[in-house]
Amino acid sequence: MNRLIAIDWGTSSLRGALIENGNVTEERAFARGILTVEPGGFPAVFESCFGDWMTQDALCLIAGMAGSQQGWMGAPYCPCPARFDDVAARLAWVVPGRIAIVPGLSIDTGGIPDVMRGEETQVFGALQSLNLQSARLVLPGTHSKWVTVTDSQITYFSTWMTGEFYALLRQHSILARTLPAHEPPPDPNAFGQGVKQALRGDGLLHTAFSARTLALFKRMAADALPSYLSGLVIGEELRCQALQPGDSVVIVGADALVARYEQALALLGVTCQRAASGATWIGLRTIAQSLRTS
Amino acid sequence: MNRLIAIDWGTSSLRGALIENGNVTEERAFARGILTVEPGGFPAVFESCFGDWMTQDALCLIAGMAGSQQGWMGAPYCPCPARFDDVAARLAWVVPGRIAIVPGLSIDTGGIPDVMRGEETQVFGALQSLNLQSARLVLPGTHSKWVTVTDSQITYFSTWMTGEFYALLRQHSILARTLPAHEPPPDPNAFGQGVKQALRGDGLLHTAFSARTLALFKRMAADALPSYLSGLVIGEELRCQALQPGDSVVIVGADALVARYEQALALLGVTCQRAASGATWIGLRTIAQSLRTS
Repeated sequence: MNRLIAIDWGTSSLRGALIENGNVTEERAFARGILTVEPGGFPAVFESCFGDWMTQDALCLIAGMAGSQQGWMGAPYCPCPARFDDVAARLAWVVPGRIAIVPGLSIDTGGIPDVMRGEETQVFGALQSLNLQSARLVLPGTHSKWVTVTDSQITYFSTWMTGEFYALLRQHSILARTLPAHEPPPDPNAFGQGVKQALRGDGLLHTAFSARTLALFKRMAADALPSYLSGLVIGEELRCQALQPGDSVVIVGADALVARYEQALALLGVTCQRAASGATWIGLRTIAQSLRTS
Repeated sequence: MNRLIAIDWGTSSLRGALIENGNVTEERAFARGILTVEPGGFPAVFESCFGDWMTQDALCLIAGMAGSQQGWMGAPYCPCPARFDDVAARLAWVVPGRIAIVPGLSIDTGGIPDVMRGEETQVFGALQSLNLQSARLVLPGTHSKWVTVTDSQITYFSTWMTGEFYALLRQHSILARTLPAHEPPPDPNAFGQGVKQALRGDGLLHTAFSARTLALFKRMAADALPSYLSGLVIGEELRCQALQPGDSVVIVGADALVARYEQALALLGVTCQRAASGATWIGLRTIAQSLRTS
């Protein structure tokens, strides 16, 4: 039997899938992101979470921040442009032939580096599942990634601190005094207003202040403000991508966030394709296959 | 004798000047911004700080957040366009004929309000001291203001949360882990690199991440990163102003911050004029004069 243990070990979470003969037969998730693990503690955490899956014939591939300097073992970045078999050729073997960490990617744009760890595997998996060789993708999140793939090769990517800016403004800025302390239900109308305001092009340093003044002049209900602010930051991210009406984007991520991006991209006349869930598992399965056939 | 008590009562500080026959003869500063004052506590704080200045013949004018809903007495915003005598005509009298609060300004741009309190007085004072009737001004700070004055009338202004974004990123974002905990001396070279990076136009959501990756790849010393980040946010503010080489800007603010803006604006080919210190006192004196002659 062909048995793959696919792991996504991120900053704040640890997820795993048991893949037997290409099919996910079990999934597990733990609040054991790398920030919760003491130096030297990774083998023990791995053993306690997935030890029972590691039968003699099993191969384990790990994507994500486990390969960072603060992780289990440093997996040096693979420079772009990179194909998935470039990544497969640079696995960092924790236990040779048994457990390997997938390297992240790096890119240099005009002397400024950018990096990703884990998203490269999601991208390869998403393209595989959609049967695409070329695409523009967005992976929304705390640090969104925009990725350009041409002929199955990641040629460009960039990081956008969109989710983190939202959290900073929501929790720590002067807006925290204006926005409600509780989390009201999403307000798609206010979200759309925020996106449109961002698309005017004044820049987030200015538009963020409107979340305060709209409340001050009672032009927006307090419960609508978090969605409006979310629209401002996501709209700003999209505005900076130089998208044109008719462009197509693949979105890879959690459903609630993907829905927001779909709404915002529709305002730009951009069509969207959702990647199937489990892009990381598909990406790791593809890398495992390339190992077995090489 | 003509005696004016000029007060700048902001969110976090309280400053006052005794102006006799047009000349500042004494200045005082207290850490008694409006956030430190209980509702109803304003008269007592005022009396303890400036009571001895309030002789029979004295007039007191107060600029700043003291006129906000959380201040001493709400002074409704004066809508733009506004001249200094429009502001003088809308003083909110705390003690009729004796103590008045200068109203802030409001503006509506495409349905989005913006506001200032205190800066309008600085602007009128700066123009008075430079003998200008028309100018573009920047008042850098936690919330920078860009102000357009045409024929002694404030026709447009906008707020930029530049200083606050810097503090949020410096203290609360992932960059706080990369940047040194202490405050290293300013590094004009790194600041200039940040400004230039911002002027490329990718947007702060993306460029902010470079403060992390430059450190990760050891391309910038840790002690240079705060200045680089400052350059990123100030450069972003300037990029959004659609400035052209040869434009001229008046800068009103504290010396250290003004110097940074001068350096950044020079990179854009924009010439700068510094307003004399004490712009608030000059502005309040001008309003007082208009009261006495009207």
